[in-house]
Amino acid sequence: MQRAVVLLSGGLDSATCLAVARAEGFECHAMSFDYGQRHRRELEAAQVVARALGAVDHWTVAFDLCRIGGSALTRGFEVPKPASVEDIGREIPVTYVPGRNTIFLSFALSWAEVLGARDIVLGVNALDYSGYPDCRPEYLEAFEQVANLGTKAGVEGDRFRIRAPLLRLTKAEIIRKGVALGVDYRLTHSCYDPDPAGRACGACDSCLLRRKGFAEAGVPDPTTYVRGREG
Amino acid sequence: MQRAVVLLSGGLDSATCLAVARAEGFECHAMSFDYGQRHRRELEAAQVVARALGAVDHWTVAFDLCRIGGSALTRGFEVPKPASVEDIGREIPVTYVPGRNTIFLSFALSWAEVLGARDIVLGVNALDYSGYPDCRPEYLEAFEQVANLGTKAGVEGDRFRIRAPLLRLTKAEIIRKGVALGVDYRLTHSCYDPDPAGRACGACDSCLLRRKGFAEAGVPDPTTYVRGREG
Repeated sequence: MQRAVVLLSGGLDSATCLAVARAEGFECHAMSFDYGQRHRRELEAAQVVARALGAVDHWTVAFDLCRIGGSALTRGFEVPKPASVEDIGREIPVTYVPGRNTIFLSFALSWAEVLGARDIVLGVNALDYSGYPDCRPEYLEAFEQVANLGTKAGVEGDRFRIRAPLLRLTKAEIIRKGVALGVDYRLTHSCYDPDPAGRACGACDSCLLRRKGFAEAGVPDPTTYVRGREG
Repeated sequence: MQRAVVLLSGGLDSATCLAVARAEGFECHAMSFDYGQRHRRELEAAQVVARALGAVDHWTVAFDLCRIGGSALTRGFEVPKPASVEDIGREIPVTYVPGRNTIFLSFALSWAEVLGARDIVLGVNALDYSGYPDCRPEYLEAFEQVANLGTKAGVEGDRFRIRAPLLRLTKAEIIRKGVALGVDYRLTHSCYDPDPAGRACGACDSCLLRRKGFAEAGVPDPTTYVRGREG
């Protein structure tokens, strides 16, 4: 059985990715990151999702990105609450965490090389997303180059593949795919700014995209939001 | 004054790099990594070197690579002790740490972006080195691509440069350059397998290359080795 390392934030997209990789027959090693994020709540979700979707292993790597700052997610700024999903700009928002996917992928690469996994799967998406530069296909291709030039396995011709199965899907398509694969979205957490009880705010970019996705997919949204649909 | 992030292991090469970057007029932000390495002693050296060579800041990022294993440096295997420097193979040795430079560079990239530094300096070397794939020029160019495609700064045209000023120097040339720039090599630590008192073993690849470098440079080696020249 071929192994894959799957980046698992605990959100909707990465849970779907794990389900896709499992359905493709991979033995999945899930990987999460405790980097000082405001929405640390997502890590509890990741743990539950990893188990529910049959990852054989789940590792949460801990390090501190708050020392760097520069992002609303590491408490450098407030999390924006746009009036509606149409107000999510196409410019890069303050929830962008500098270098984050590069850090995540580099740990995944290290683990994958030792595990003998050559597939690294992540849930980035270039349609219903927040405009982050490290979610674009050209970035992923460049990282694949790094993986193959900077490792023993790559140099020996045993090439890595960076797989982003959701790259060109809308949020609604992602949700429909996940539902078909049996993903229980109640277990996932998307919100950037949960309340102390861990409930989704309902108003950040991530909540707005999630709500829009369920609405467009015609699937009931199982999330409890602090600020309701009318809010 | 332009800022640079300088990777600083505490060894001879990275100390020389810091001196080079300072001499070029950069305000240097030094960065070290506490990743579970067997030679954690190098981090004390890094701290002293950062101060001695005038880094304005020094950050040691902590995370655990022992969970991954796959390297003698993270205690997966014994550190090899070749009979002589000629016995250091050109194949990739077990001291290779999978993905290590990619992890280091990705943290440097994240910090650099927030600091407004566009130069990331590291002491990799493609001549007197251990054959690591992530020390080669083609790897560094690929990472530069990642840096410029995966960040807000890069996308906005404010490009990053990955600088490896020692890439094509022999160890002897590195030492002569460092001496000319006032590097006190007593403060540096190269050994992969120090004794409990932190003294260099004198027999690992890194000690052998260091010794050869001082001998060829005609510079007295200030290091105390557990196993002497005759050993």
